[in-house]
Amino acid sequence: MGLVVQKFGGTSVADPDRMRRVARHVADTRAGGDGVVVVVSAMGKATDNLLGLARQVSANPSGRELDMLLTTGERISSALLCMALLDLGCDAVSFTGSQVGIITDTSHTKAKILEIKGDRVREAIAQGKVAVVAGFQGVSTAKEVTTLGRGGSDTTAVALAAALRADSCEIYTDVTGVFSADPRMVPRARKLPWLSFDEMLEMAGAGSKVLALRSVEFARNHGVPIHVRSSFTWEPGTWVSGDEGRRAMEEPIISGVVHDVGESKMTLLGVPDRPGVSALLFESLAHANVNVDMIVQNTSVDGTTDISFTLPAGDVAVAQPILERVGAEVGAKGVDTDAQIAKLSLVGAGMKTSPGVAARMFRVLADHGVNIEMISTSTIRISVVVERSMLDTAIVALHAAFGLDADSDYSAPLPERT
Amino acid sequence: MGLVVQKFGGTSVADPDRMRRVARHVADTRAGGDGVVVVVSAMGKATDNLLGLARQVSANPSGRELDMLLTTGERISSALLCMALLDLGCDAVSFTGSQVGIITDTSHTKAKILEIKGDRVREAIAQGKVAVVAGFQGVSTAKEVTTLGRGGSDTTAVALAAALRADSCEIYTDVTGVFSADPRMVPRARKLPWLSFDEMLEMAGAGSKVLALRSVEFARNHGVPIHVRSSFTWEPGTWVSGDEGRRAMEEPIISGVVHDVGESKMTLLGVPDRPGVSALLFESLAHANVNVDMIVQNTSVDGTTDISFTLPAGDVAVAQPILERVGAEVGAKGVDTDAQIAKLSLVGAGMKTSPGVAARMFRVLADHGVNIEMISTSTIRISVVVERSMLDTAIVALHAAFGLDADSDYSAPLPERT
Repeated sequence: MGLVVQKFGGTSVADPDRMRRVARHVADTRAGGDGVVVVVSAMGKATDNLLGLARQVSANPSGRELDMLLTTGERISSALLCMALLDLGCDAVSFTGSQVGIITDTSHTKAKILEIKGDRVREAIAQGKVAVVAGFQGVSTAKEVTTLGRGGSDTTAVALAAALRADSCEIYTDVTGVFSADPRMVPRARKLPWLSFDEMLEMAGAGSKVLALRSVEFARNHGVPIHVRSSFTWEPGTWVSGDEGRRAMEEPIISGVVHDVGESKMTLLGVPDRPGVSALLFESLAHANVNVDMIVQNTSVDGTTDISFTLPAGDVAVAQPILERVGAEVGAKGVDTDAQIAKLSLVGAGMKTSPGVAARMFRVLADHGVNIEMISTSTIRISVVVERSMLDTAIVALHAAFGLDADSDYSAPLPERT
Repeated sequence: MGLVVQKFGGTSVADPDRMRRVARHVADTRAGGDGVVVVVSAMGKATDNLLGLARQVSANPSGRELDMLLTTGERISSALLCMALLDLGCDAVSFTGSQVGIITDTSHTKAKILEIKGDRVREAIAQGKVAVVAGFQGVSTAKEVTTLGRGGSDTTAVALAAALRADSCEIYTDVTGVFSADPRMVPRARKLPWLSFDEMLEMAGAGSKVLALRSVEFARNHGVPIHVRSSFTWEPGTWVSGDEGRRAMEEPIISGVVHDVGESKMTLLGVPDRPGVSALLFESLAHANVNVDMIVQNTSVDGTTDISFTLPAGDVAVAQPILERVGAEVGAKGVDTDAQIAKLSLVGAGMKTSPGVAARMFRVLADHGVNIEMISTSTIRISVVVERSMLDTAIVALHAAFGLDADSDYSAPLPERT
């Protein structure tokens, strides 16, 4: 008998009808003979609604109490899904993160998993029951209820799959897999049958929203194969694993084009070119929990330079006074902020052994009149920042130039991911 | 330093504004120097909404999963109230029933409390914090989440007050106390400053909705003084305790007139008058969990008799086939059901030593043309069943005849109790 962990996101369990559909799929899997552990997110907008309540009650809600509040969302989903499974004659039992023994550190609202005991889940599986686990949550070493932060339910699923030595972790979402580009922007985008962990990591880091970065890191570190698929169609999706042998000979150099419009660019202008200035700036930003992404420093001209970086658009308000303070301290000429940017990345393990990918990318963009504002590279990724208005042109051109276009336009319905 | 347990019902915490008002009251109590433990119900209609979800997902939801589901309601309230308290600078920490160590038996949806450990609550109080406990819930000896059934949060509050040896348990509701009759029906009803446990028990049993019967039993058994008051006005309410010395010399014989329109009357007609018939009938009803209240058996006429009883209107559908089956078995002439009844009770410890209360009650009713269908008495209560249409006349007449009318009409606003 195999063991599979199935994770269903908020859209998949958004209402009683969908909940029953998910139950039918889980019951079918179980009837097929495999042991099944299910991880569920909160229903639809439940978490947002709870957050809204918290903000109405308190201007600055306590992290501990936020965790007590928000974890109820997943708990409601898990209990309802169990009821639906029992109605189908599929024996099932729900567990909170605490009951599963998902032990975390004490960082409320963004806790890290330290250990999964899982005794009660193992016991349920041994009794032939489906174990339905409330995602996104754990219990700290101080016995407090904690949440795992963004993408927490994906992380719960992967961590459980690792702890239980499951054969795979299926992540059900509202898209049918990972695509070579966003099908809403590139009609000829293809669904990728397989990706390596490293490629998926780069894609998540470059702005792909299909899998949370943390859960992919966890999967890679523990060798858990992930199957990303849709809960609306159940067709085979995209496998993400460490099994390099899976890569077909004819696999293209580039797996996909990923974009991100959630970042802004900030620049400290006319900074004296002397040691310690960058350190001071980025230490100050790190101290304020600002997540800096790409960093570019111009060559020094007449003893001064510009330091540019990208950051989540929502962090600009926090970063602005820091840049002004550091700027005044080091004698900079000013601060510039640009929200009208887009980050565009090529990701593909093939580029490790194919020289000239970057050059070709820059040539394609130049031929289409797209100006490059910043560049950053890794072994299997090249990212550029371009003007927001040029994003559509750039992404379609790159997708075609790197041989990613499918024979026909992608036309399956694609609900909004929430 | 004293210690008080304050329980707030669903109406008191129905929205963020009310939640903040409750927080202000709790913070004021704490600032006065007493230790405070708060017990909260789910917000407004939250429990009903969760039950509705469960029914949409499953025709017959599992008790274990219902408990997992419903307990989230009180947990949400407790976390939000803590956030509001912290905002006011009042140090507070929320606890689930499980975290408090409210140990129950394993009867899902109607568990009984076996023991309260309370270590974390005591620790919080010792640190000067307000402990906010999610009501209505516990953890079973099998480590499963359980709920305490109807009136569960009142029971949580009283049981915690007993376990922590609190000075009193304040039950905040949406009426300002216990009245000599329902002020919506008797404008001259008076708020009672004090009632004995026994009187309150009889009142709850006779249909008063202010306190759950179970919580009063618990308070009496453990000697916990209860103070029933309103969260909207904060004026002094009604004390319920075992302290007989509190009764003033001029206290009337009767404390109040209580009515109940939630019952129906069923009659098994023309039953052969022989031993074992009643036993068979009421054993069958008990087996089906039908809560029978008053029972009357007529004197035998020509070897047959009628057996009448009252029961919650909602149980009639379950009871009907049982009566038909038992009736056929014993050779009864038929089954009669009357939903148009009302139960009317006089409650008062004074009647123990005042002969003739029953006779006077029957005379007053007769003088007002009210026919009595059934009678039942205890040492401190007399209940009669009358036609529903005569209830208003009967209650006003009895309230006046037993000297309960206040000097002026009661006119404070009385929101619906939910």
